[in-house]
Amino acid sequence: MRILGIDPGLKHTGWGVIESKNAKMYFLAAGILHSDTKKELSERLCELHTGMLSIVDEFNPDEASIEQTFVNTNPVASLRLGQARGAVIIAPVLRGVPVFEYTANQIKKTVVGVGHADKKQVDMMVHSMLKGMEDIKLKADASDALAIAACHGFMRASRLKTAGVK
Amino acid sequence: MRILGIDPGLKHTGWGVIESKNAKMYFLAAGILHSDTKKELSERLCELHTGMLSIVDEFNPDEASIEQTFVNTNPVASLRLGQARGAVIIAPVLRGVPVFEYTANQIKKTVVGVGHADKKQVDMMVHSMLKGMEDIKLKADASDALAIAACHGFMRASRLKTAGVK
Repeated sequence: MRILGIDPGLKHTGWGVIESKNAKMYFLAAGILHSDTKKELSERLCELHTGMLSIVDEFNPDEASIEQTFVNTNPVASLRLGQARGAVIIAPVLRGVPVFEYTANQIKKTVVGVGHADKKQVDMMVHSMLKGMEDIKLKADASDALAIAACHGFMRASRLKTAGVK
Repeated sequence: MRILGIDPGLKHTGWGVIESKNAKMYFLAAGILHSDTKKELSERLCELHTGMLSIVDEFNPDEASIEQTFVNTNPVASLRLGQARGAVIIAPVLRGVPVFEYTANQIKKTVVGVGHADKKQVDMMVHSMLKGMEDIKLKADASDALAIAACHGFMRASRLKTAGVK
């Protein structure tokens, strides 16, 4: 089961791919899509969208996972983030990959154990949880995307367990 | 010069296509894309996106025009609208069609003459302004999309005039 995690943002969209196998999770790849701040908004959104499509095509995930966006008290920021989220979330769906959504608190609680973990703690847990990440250093957006993928890996496994699937 | 106007929304996204020729504007087509409220958000966004791609492919516009979204005081509504906007705005860009943005006030002022016109006034002006619309009745979202297209037609013509292009 290959999972793509997405941490959407207009300037930077983090992504991470993991393989979940026999109750273990393995790091495959991670990175950040950037949009060119000098370009028009519509072109920036298109850059993020085509970038995400390339990642889906390259890694061919079975399922995708995305953070349920925190509703900012600032409507301008919410609108910007919403547009980026809309542009990237449709990339997996267009390729027939189902997308699952988790709140930031669910992700932190699942990955770190507490709902209000900071970025450093998330990165540490991502490193200790995913096999094959020993020497890999990542920026926060990519690390967060892996945490989002890992959260789905856990939730999926626990749902299957509850359903009696071994 | 063929112009596609887009009035984005998660539930309903209005679209309208006009032809601007020799300082006259002609109605070509208009309609509304609906997303299935029973489906997951990511799938609804994908429906709007693929629907808009089909319209771009069918009508092959030279330029597109979209309303610069009103920043709602409600961040949840802004986030929903932002996602729909992000999903549809990239459709023309993916096909190489440049997108121009106008505020709601600019559109109303250009089309009706006042910045705070209501939907009925916008619809009336769209009907009297676009040739070939005499017997056509449209819902507000489609009518608004035509107004957005017509606004771009006017602004474009006035920019060319200012630049001395005949």
